[in-house]
Amino acid sequence: MKAIVAHAAKDVRIEEFPDEDLGKGQVRLKLATGGICGSDLHYYNHGGFGTVRLRQPMVLGHEVSAVVEALGEGVENLEIGQLVAVSPSRPCRSCRYCQQGLHNQCLNMRFYGSAMPFPHIQGAFREHLIADAIQCVPADGLSAGEAAMAEPLAVTLHATRRAGEMLGKRVLVTGCGPIGLLSILSARRAGAAEIVATDLSDFTLAMAKTAGADRTINSAQEPDALAAYGADKGTFDVLYECSGAAAALAAGITAMRPRGVIIQLGLGGDMSLPMMAITSKELELRGSFRFHEEFATGVSLMQKGLIDVKPLITHTVPLADAISAFELASDRSRAMKAQIRFN
Amino acid sequence: MKAIVAHAAKDVRIEEFPDEDLGKGQVRLKLATGGICGSDLHYYNHGGFGTVRLRQPMVLGHEVSAVVEALGEGVENLEIGQLVAVSPSRPCRSCRYCQQGLHNQCLNMRFYGSAMPFPHIQGAFREHLIADAIQCVPADGLSAGEAAMAEPLAVTLHATRRAGEMLGKRVLVTGCGPIGLLSILSARRAGAAEIVATDLSDFTLAMAKTAGADRTINSAQEPDALAAYGADKGTFDVLYECSGAAAALAAGITAMRPRGVIIQLGLGGDMSLPMMAITSKELELRGSFRFHEEFATGVSLMQKGLIDVKPLITHTVPLADAISAFELASDRSRAMKAQIRFN
Amino acid sequence: MKAIVAHAAKDVRIEEFPDEDLGKGQVRLKLATGGICGSDLHYYNHGGFGTVRLRQPMVLGHEVSAVVEALGEGVENLEIGQLVAVSPSRPCRSCRYCQQGLHNQCLNMRFYGSAMPFPHIQGAFREHLIADAIQCVPADGLSAGEAAMAEPLAVTLHATRRAGEMLGKRVLVTGCGPIGLLSILSARRAGAAEIVATDLSDFTLAMAKTAGADRTINSAQEPDALAAYGADKGTFDVLYECSGAAAALAAGITAMRPRGVIIQLGLGGDMSLPMMAITSKELELRGSFRFHEEFATGVSLMQKGLIDVKPLITHTVPLADAISAFELASDRSRAMKAQIRFN
Amino acid sequence: MKAIVAHAAKDVRIEEFPDEDLGKGQVRLKLATGGICGSDLHYYNHGGFGTVRLRQPMVLGHEVSAVVEALGEGVENLEIGQLVAVSPSRPCRSCRYCQQGLHNQCLNMRFYGSAMPFPHIQGAFREHLIADAIQCVPADGLSAGEAAMAEPLAVTLHATRRAGEMLGKRVLVTGCGPIGLLSILSARRAGAAEIVATDLSDFTLAMAKTAGADRTINSAQEPDALAAYGADKGTFDVLYECSGAAAALAAGITAMRPRGVIIQLGLGGDMSLPMMAITSKELELRGSFRFHEEFATGVSLMQKGLIDVKPLITHTVPLADAISAFELASDRSRAMKAQIRFN
Repeated sequence: MKAIVAHAAKDVRIEEFPDEDLGKGQVRLKLATGGICGSDLHYYNHGGFGTVRLRQPMVLGHEVSAVVEALGEGVENLEIGQLVAVSPSRPCRSCRYCQQGLHNQCLNMRFYGSAMPFPHIQGAFREHLIADAIQCVPADGLSAGEAAMAEPLAVTLHATRRAGEMLGKRVLVTGCGPIGLLSILSARRAGAAEIVATDLSDFTLAMAKTAGADRTINSAQEPDALAAYGADKGTFDVLYECSGAAAALAAGITAMRPRGVIIQLGLGGDMSLPMMAITSKELELRGSFRFHEEFATGVSLMQKGLIDVKPLITHTVPLADAISAFELASDRSRAMKAQIRFN
Repeated sequence: MKAIVAHAAKDVRIEEFPDEDLGKGQVRLKLATGGICGSDLHYYNHGGFGTVRLRQPMVLGHEVSAVVEALGEGVENLEIGQLVAVSPSRPCRSCRYCQQGLHNQCLNMRFYGSAMPFPHIQGAFREHLIADAIQCVPADGLSAGEAAMAEPLAVTLHATRRAGEMLGKRVLVTGCGPIGLLSILSARRAGAAEIVATDLSDFTLAMAKTAGADRTINSAQEPDALAAYGADKGTFDVLYECSGAAAALAAGITAMRPRGVIIQLGLGGDMSLPMMAITSKELELRGSFRFHEEFATGVSLMQKGLIDVKPLITHTVPLADAISAFELASDRSRAMKAQIRFN
Repeated sequence: MKAIVAHAAKDVRIEEFPDEDLGKGQVRLKLATGGICGSDLHYYNHGGFGTVRLRQPMVLGHEVSAVVEALGEGVENLEIGQLVAVSPSRPCRSCRYCQQGLHNQCLNMRFYGSAMPFPHIQGAFREHLIADAIQCVPADGLSAGEAAMAEPLAVTLHATRRAGEMLGKRVLVTGCGPIGLLSILSARRAGAAEIVATDLSDFTLAMAKTAGADRTINSAQEPDALAAYGADKGTFDVLYECSGAAAALAAGITAMRPRGVIIQLGLGGDMSLPMMAITSKELELRGSFRFHEEFATGVSLMQKGLIDVKPLITHTVPLADAISAFELASDRSRAMKAQIRFN
Repeated sequence: MKAIVAHAAKDVRIEEFPDEDLGKGQVRLKLATGGICGSDLHYYNHGGFGTVRLRQPMVLGHEVSAVVEALGEGVENLEIGQLVAVSPSRPCRSCRYCQQGLHNQCLNMRFYGSAMPFPHIQGAFREHLIADAIQCVPADGLSAGEAAMAEPLAVTLHATRRAGEMLGKRVLVTGCGPIGLLSILSARRAGAAEIVATDLSDFTLAMAKTAGADRTINSAQEPDALAAYGADKGTFDVLYECSGAAAALAAGITAMRPRGVIIQLGLGGDMSLPMMAITSKELELRGSFRFHEEFATGVSLMQKGLIDVKPLITHTVPLADAISAFELASDRSRAMKAQIRFN
């Protein structure tokens, strides 16, 4: 079968990849759609991020939907022909963090398409996939594209739960890429009363508005707009930091009210933070990383029409043109989520 | 001016009531709409509830909207002619609970239309009202009827915040009167993934379905339906108990999963509870009483179209027919929220 | 070997019990000390409690310490001759509650000496025991009696964590049996500033005083003493309900401040509760059941001298006199914790 | 009367200061003891810290105890001759943060001895002081020195409450000045099971050991000692960052377990943080600033012998020698808390 394999920066190839055997409790899947994520782009553009580097060829991809082709022994809750969203998260379920219910912190995590461990964990951008039944959430009623959005949606649902109480809250989102937009949708679904979003791109800000932001601010054009929210020690209860930029975080901190919660979603390197403001306003900066049960929650919320991710999918290209999709997805002036159609 | 005054059980009169003077920081209001609440019905039907008894004539009413007629000295954030939702909650802001931010627990609370203290606190069902500006939330864009729903909506928003994290949760609502229905709307707004509602009336259950319940159960016709949710120690994460009936609470407890949260909203007398189940499943039974900042939150959410209470208003009658409205509101087979139009 | 076997109410026998085989990851233990718990007494005096009934002979006991006799394959963190506290809690680690970190809610729990499931789970009052290494917490530096207190201490440490923030709090403990006294020790260890304890027995109240209660109240002799704490809506932030008596709980509720937390530890049948007070004061009634990681925590706190349970052990009798220990332990006028010495 | 007045860096004088009038609800106090705090040292050594600069002469001091000399009208809960701990925190009780119970975030705070606002808020290092009765907590049974420790103790009690659940937790304290040591005492009082402390001074580390640290690490001599705690994603549940040094915080982050909580107490400038670790381990960095109700809690805990601060008071000098006390307090190799005796 064909797979999308990263060899080095700017060297991603569509090439043959061996089949795997179907085991007990597993299913054989025919891939439907795969979404390109920021980490895929880092491998494509830079061969990794931070200290994480490609050291061997690796299949990319961890945002995928698929159709069930065959059921392994003992699988009862899935049906052949059914569309499923496939969770890329494969915790061991027995390490001390799994036993504490913190599966996203598993010591033995095998997350699709990750070069953090060596040998690398091969990703899901391939025509066929053997997955554990437990990874597969039936996605009846959704399009293959929507089902492939379950993964990034799970990231922001997890972040929203990390943020705590959201009903009636005032929310700031810095950075309007796919994670920023899904943060807007998730915060609104959880009851946020007011949402302000910032970015440097008018294209993404327009999409943020469509996704439900009450106000959008182009930080390049209105560099002082956030400062007004800093009166009386600040305004926002929650900040989703999705830009990975220290300047955005610092500006956001000024606008946060005392005891506000900052959810750090952007993955970056070291950042210089205004600790005096964090300490004296008693802000809470919380990291948020991946997800666990929120994957199924996201599928359910999409199925009930309670979250609509469809407007975020700006491009869908066939597998043969997949490399062009990586270029597209890198262009924040015209693309939000680019997906690859495998069938 | 005219006011609706309760003298005793089944003795509620529309009669003259003296005007009050406009003070500093206050506004003079012309009443628009008043909704009839369960406690109003208790005064009307029984002259009180529990140990709370009418000991002097008392103006009823605490769910009201009004139009600003005159501004007292120092009032700047309101305008003459503006529709406002009027919070009936008047905490002292200086007692130890107010100083802890628990204004709904104020030791000196003067909540409209309450016979708990003596002299009783006169209510808001009167043609004109002097209110503190701080009680008035501008309701531009809402109908007078919607604005008058801000009060019961605030009750269920407060309850929802008391319930804690709601995103993706499975929710049971027992009792589908106005508070039950507003609980459904609030839970959904806060991200509940599945909502099941029970009642004894097909009329209210049909309205619960419209309000967004995924499933409704007539407990009289399907007495065992909840039991199925009790498998593997139970299903629901959150229970809004809005019936005040021990049987409903007991059935709900069976269906709750370990560590589930039960919000007790219904006001009743002593209840016999299955303590063994509460202890061994480590359930949490939390009282929820009135509201504070949630009043303004509710107005904001209605204004943005994020919560729609309009379908709950089944009847609106003119002041002259107000007594009939109390009869109507007592009839669960055909009325949800009955409101009185004052202008 | 000898074991203490309950056949029916008042029919508990010291009789022969078969040895078990030592498996992988297990240890063979020589029992040191076993404490008699309230549930053991229910089996002894009544043949069960509530709907839980002895349906076959069952070894009693779940509060035990032991000395390691032999190590099964793969056991590395224990040594032969070492004193260990043995956790009676054996969750499956794979059901959905275990995977959420709620091991005490395990669907397949095999807790020593419990007649809840059938066949019953045999208890630990026997001369030799095969246990999983993971159940054994090294208790170096403790006496065998102290080590056997790790189990009931874990119950109250778990309850204390369920109660939330304790630093500087005002605490009420109703019921001064062993669980009540360990609640006092646990609350104090967690930073409670003031502790008041109630009971009907001057003997247990004197022990409560020794354990650190700032004030003790004999509810029979001073029936109105708690009422004074009810001024201004109440005083106590936390109530440990350890009596299982509805009257104690009702009196406690009067003395609780708004938003106070009631931890229900006592196992009893249905109870009539003053729901109006729970709702209007927004109290939180939380069940607390057994423990999980708190077992090792308790051993550690005892080893560091941060909690001292020794004064609670009022009686220690040899195995041959075990039946008399059950009579002793039933007498609240002279016994707190009665233990059986097995070696 | 005499007061200790800062004019500029290294220019602190003992000079005459005018008396104030006694008003309603106030008391006239004769100062007993004043402790020198880190911020006093910043004014003494540098004329301020960060952007906060002395712009007019300012009486220093905010850690004081005193004896009641005279009672203003309406003061009933204090007695002439009584020793009191005096809270330097004077929130307005009416701004929006005070009304939310966040008095330490008051928009109109008048905290003793602070150059943040202009005119500066005069401090409490003067022979006589007019204070609101509400600032005074009776300190019967304490020495004047202990009572003057109520303020820094309140800081760490507040930090401990910000840290959340502490019972059985593993705690790291970076920086062993007075705030670090009081953090150790507070964490232990709240139930911490294991406490490790780091610093660069053997003198302060020895005192940390005495205060209850299970292990102390001299980061200069054992630079890699913390790294061992980083195995399996880390060890500590809570970090009290009391050093204000980015290197200490970064080393601590490595040793934190996933979802661990970092309390930032040290006031410093911008700091470079390892955001990748914070995000991927989902750490929570929480500022903690001053205190409110914890002031009275600290006095109560000291009175009951539940926290003993006496060993921290290494030096007490008479008012006439106060300037030498500032030099002493700046020397981390021989002084922990230096206090000034005013009477």
